Amino acid sequence: MSGTLFILGIGPGDPELITVKAADILSRVKKVFIPVSGQGRESYAYSTASNYISPDTSVAELVFPMTTDHELLSRRYAENYQRIETVLRQGYDAALLTLGDPGTYSSASQIATLLRQRAPDIPIEIIPGITSFAAAAAKAGIALSKSSDLLAVVSSYDDLERIEAILDLSDTVVFLKTYTQRDTIVGLLEKQGLLEKAVYIERVGLPQERIVRDLRMLPDEPDYLSMIIVKKKA
Amino acid sequence: MSGTLFILGIGPGDPELITVKAADILSRVKKVFIPVSGQGRESYAYSTASNYISPDTSVAELVFPMTTDHELLSRRYAENYQRIETVLRQGYDAALLTLGDPGTYSSASQIATLLRQRAPDIPIEIIPGITSFAAAAAKAGIALSKSSDLLAVVSSYDDLERIEAILDLSDTVVFLKTYTQRDTIVGLLEKQGLLEKAVYIERVGLPQERIVRDLRMLPDEPDYLSMIIVKKKA
Repeated sequence: MSGTLFILGIGPGDPELITVKAADILSRVKKVFIPVSGQGRESYAYSTASNYISPDTSVAELVFPMTTDHELLSRRYAENYQRIETVLRQGYDAALLTLGDPGTYSSASQIATLLRQRAPDIPIEIIPGITSFAAAAAKAGIALSKSSDLLAVVSSYDDLERIEAILDLSDTVVFLKTYTQRDTIVGLLEKQGLLEKAVYIERVGLPQERIVRDLRMLPDEPDYLSMIIVKKKA
Repeated sequence: MSGTLFILGIGPGDPELITVKAADILSRVKKVFIPVSGQGRESYAYSTASNYISPDTSVAELVFPMTTDHELLSRRYAENYQRIETVLRQGYDAALLTLGDPGTYSSASQIATLLRQRAPDIPIEIIPGITSFAAAAAKAGIALSKSSDLLAVVSSYDDLERIEAILDLSDTVVFLKTYTQRDTIVGLLEKQGLLEKAVYIERVGLPQERIVRDLRMLPDEPDYLSMIIVKKKA
């Protein structure tokens, strides 16, 4: 009998924003897999979840490199997948952690896809998590959406025309991971007269959390864990 | 000294999908306010949270009627607000429950706005919650969004042109509260050849949960707690 894979959303990084269910699963499984962007890199997933993991549980890092090299990426996914399947085949339940929510811009969903394709007999359970933008809105005191609002979430800025169209169409737009093209986004918001309607939030729920309401005063150093929320209606 | 108002996201309805933080606050406050759509109506918020509330805590229902009568609505909001402020002024901490996330289509945000306007000295803390659509995607095994996807969330269907535009522009569209205009949405998806890309989810996390992958087989009776997730990319 194989074990079950639990893909756990552990929320934005504040250990208290884990669900009761995720905390319970973490205390029961004997194998926990933690995604990191590189060997030995700081793991927000681990620092968020560590208090809930029993001391006799084995914790392993899986490297999901931040790269656009598709060949390298899919090789790494296959290797990571194999390590998980091996443990499950040994009969252990295992948890794969994912910051935020597993269904919302998370690399865990690709592991789930591989597992369903290659080992359809192995049970898998996905536990949703608090997204970074729900946490950021709560901290900044912003209601993301009300009554009939249209809410859009964007995580890439390759197609500026598309971004302009979505800004036109939506009531609220969440720009995630604003580190690479922050100036482009801010420029666009300025052009559209939306700069006063935007809030910048960095590292929500982490000790270095920062909220900037005047986008002319942004920190110089772009941060990976950052977002801009634009709310057109009051 | 006034108490603090905690606006608590308690998630989609599964008591285990409450955050550790919300559970902790529920166990500490002496006053809990629960939104209901009418006097004596079933309260999913209460059944989700009840296990975490101490027996000596006073629990009060606040009626937020489902109506488009703006005058009635704003009178009710003002009354509900007043009841909360009175308790806070007596020095008690109080929790106002909200299903899902307080920032995402929740009436609690209007109470927060009233409190900030009328009693800016009273502290308020908003605790994010798991949204119904994150929970539904997890249960249905759907990744809402990956890498550079554009995710849109829609909760009203008055403007069909806008809905068509958002379907064109986005990779994933979540249609919340599909009860009033389900046929319109399904018709639109059929017209755009997207019927096979859509999943219907009803009452996620509740005992009557239902997932329908073939939109030609939808239940006859429309349900308020229902959504359709359309995912254009595999």
